[in-house]
Amino acid sequence: MSNPIRATIELVEDSRNQGRQLTAKGQATRARILAVAAELVLRNGVAGTQIEDVRKAAGVSGSQMTHYFQDKRTLIKDVITWQADATVETHHRPELGELDTFAAWRNWAELITQQQVGRGFQGGCDFGSLAGQLVESSQETRSDLADGYERLLRLFRRGLQAMRDRGDLREDADPDALAHALLAAMQGGILLSQTLRRAAPLRDSFDAALTQLESFATDH
Amino acid sequence: MSNPIRATIELVEDSRNQGRQLTAKGQATRARILAVAAELVLRNGVAGTQIEDVRKAAGVSGSQMTHYFQDKRTLIKDVITWQADATVETHHRPELGELDTFAAWRNWAELITQQQVGRGFQGGCDFGSLAGQLVESSQETRSDLADGYERLLRLFRRGLQAMRDRGDLREDADPDALAHALLAAMQGGILLSQTLRRAAPLRDSFDAALTQLESFATDH
Repeated sequence: MSNPIRATIELVEDSRNQGRQLTAKGQATRARILAVAAELVLRNGVAGTQIEDVRKAAGVSGSQMTHYFQDKRTLIKDVITWQADATVETHHRPELGELDTFAAWRNWAELITQQQVGRGFQGGCDFGSLAGQLVESSQETRSDLADGYERLLRLFRRGLQAMRDRGDLREDADPDALAHALLAAMQGGILLSQTLRRAAPLRDSFDAALTQLESFATDH
Repeated sequence: MSNPIRATIELVEDSRNQGRQLTAKGQATRARILAVAAELVLRNGVAGTQIEDVRKAAGVSGSQMTHYFQDKRTLIKDVITWQADATVETHHRPELGELDTFAAWRNWAELITQQQVGRGFQGGCDFGSLAGQLVESSQETRSDLADGYERLLRLFRRGLQAMRDRGDLREDADPDALAHALLAAMQGGILLSQTLRRAAPLRDSFDAALTQLESFATDH
């Protein structure tokens, strides 16, 4: 049925295409610049982050910087794609498998919760934080963020559709609607737990979405 | 049973205490400064917003500014409280009543959805946007934001507890957990709809949390 390896390749191909011509060292440099840029953008916003600040903080030369990023617009776009890649890759850990069983969804919620507990709820969801901070900064940036969420929604839907095709979920289960609810529960739950610095809001939020998912289980 | 008027007074008393000594004109000036400050903070972050920028944008004198706000710390704190007040007051519209029936919760979800549709999903949740952008800016600011969420959670819990006391909700319904799930569904759903500029994520997110709430209904 579903093929996790092919799925991973499809989902991360955007970033691979961008990095394809780079050597391993070049890819590492590019990743370091993106990590630094993400941190600065989260701290100071798009308007408050200049290419020169990123260059200094990453410790690279001006010519290296322009080699990887033509301008600020390219840099912001790549920061968003890079963070979306990282979030999508979190969903392809071997222990998680495809999100196409009820157990896998419970494991997924537990994994995300443990990640947040492990960091003391600091920083919240990396992609969600970028979305919350940059969504209104420009139409282009909003569209890049929307692409990131759409990739996650596709990943969720594929697992849910497989569950319906297999007969685990009833015919009246809507994979689109369930994917929205699961992703919203994750984003809202993380923001509450991040602000309140306790796990209960995230756990309770996941539990509501998972209970609804499980309410569509067939009897077999 | 529950008294909406007393509840409203309790929930907004923070802001009333701060504004108590001001004339109507003074309160209007203070509100204008706070609205301008909220907008600037959302656009430029805490670090990128100076008292002087707020003063200019609000069109008030330096002495007026210092009359209402001693320093930037007070201003940021008051922006958060003011935005929390506005969000809490949204939940006290006459057409909504207390959030203590299943119908009231469905109406609540519809009201929030219509608000977002009406603004074309731009700006998202005003309080949630502040939370997403400011939560990691300082320990004090995070704590002010947490207070805002706690006020909303108390409001939600009070309605849910009334439903349980009345026997609408089963004994095993946990008002704390349900309040977390409903607030997270609202925050996550709005962020997704804001980014994707369509209503379905918010509707589906609310539907999951409301379905879980309704699953605790007694048979009577």
